[in-house]
Amino acid sequence: MPESTPIAVTDEQLSAVAFNADGLVPAIVQEEGTGRILMMAWMNRESLRLTVEEGQAVYWSRSRGKLWRKGESSGHQQVLRDIRLDCDADVVLLKVEQKGGIACHTGRRSCFYRTLKDGQWVSADPVLKDPNTIYGSN
Amino acid sequence: MPESTPIAVTDEQLSAVAFNADGLVPAIVQEEGTGRILMMAWMNRESLRLTVEEGQAVYWSRSRGKLWRKGESSGHQQVLRDIRLDCDADVVLLKVEQKGGIACHTGRRSCFYRTLKDGQWVSADPVLKDPNTIYGSN
Repeated sequence: MPESTPIAVTDEQLSAVAFNADGLVPAIVQEEGTGRILMMAWMNRESLRLTVEEGQAVYWSRSRGKLWRKGESSGHQQVLRDIRLDCDADVVLLKVEQKGGIACHTGRRSCFYRTLKDGQWVSADPVLKDPNTIYGSN
Repeated sequence: MPESTPIAVTDEQLSAVAFNADGLVPAIVQEEGTGRILMMAWMNRESLRLTVEEGQAVYWSRSRGKLWRKGESSGHQQVLRDIRLDCDADVVLLKVEQKGGIACHTGRRSCFYRTLKDGQWVSADPVLKDPNTIYGSN
């Protein structure tokens, strides 16, 4: 599903997805190649349709209450390589190419940078880029 | 975090997790080694505590309204190898050893077996074991 050949998603296929009471479905985001889990975000029906049609991840920002084209401020877009639906049809999995190698707003590769070690949550992954330089100029 | 050396999780560390209005947090489950995403389930505070303390995945079944020790019927337990928390503290990621190599109740390795191909959701992964033989004798 390369960037140059986006495909359409039909209403029938969107209807196969079991959105929750808020009209949302969790989207797990995995980096193609490395298999690393980058983040989890939420999609409504429109953002799922746009993700498939545009070939780039578009989420629904619950905090801002609007569509969120991943990378619109940071340039760290996620190019869609595969999209999966789980057995209950209530979770989607995106396999993506992560532009810039950074998915997290903290400047780390992945949002899942904290691990439980000796009963404490500790950061296990380095900050690759100062968040101020990611978002500061936008 | 091998099976034989479970660690405790403190109230302080549980309190760092941002459970939703229903007291739940999504748990993404990834197979250690292969990096394959096996499933997503939900945890309440108690199931998260038990998962860490027992070193095996324990979820909260929303449909049954009770704790769900993964593998209690199927034998397909998930041994905890690592647990991660995301930047917003509202999603956890489990890295596990999947007993029996099957996480999905359909008898597939992963619950994410459907992919969007030419505008249709199609099964991309084989059934490894007849679900009737997984659950039939319990």
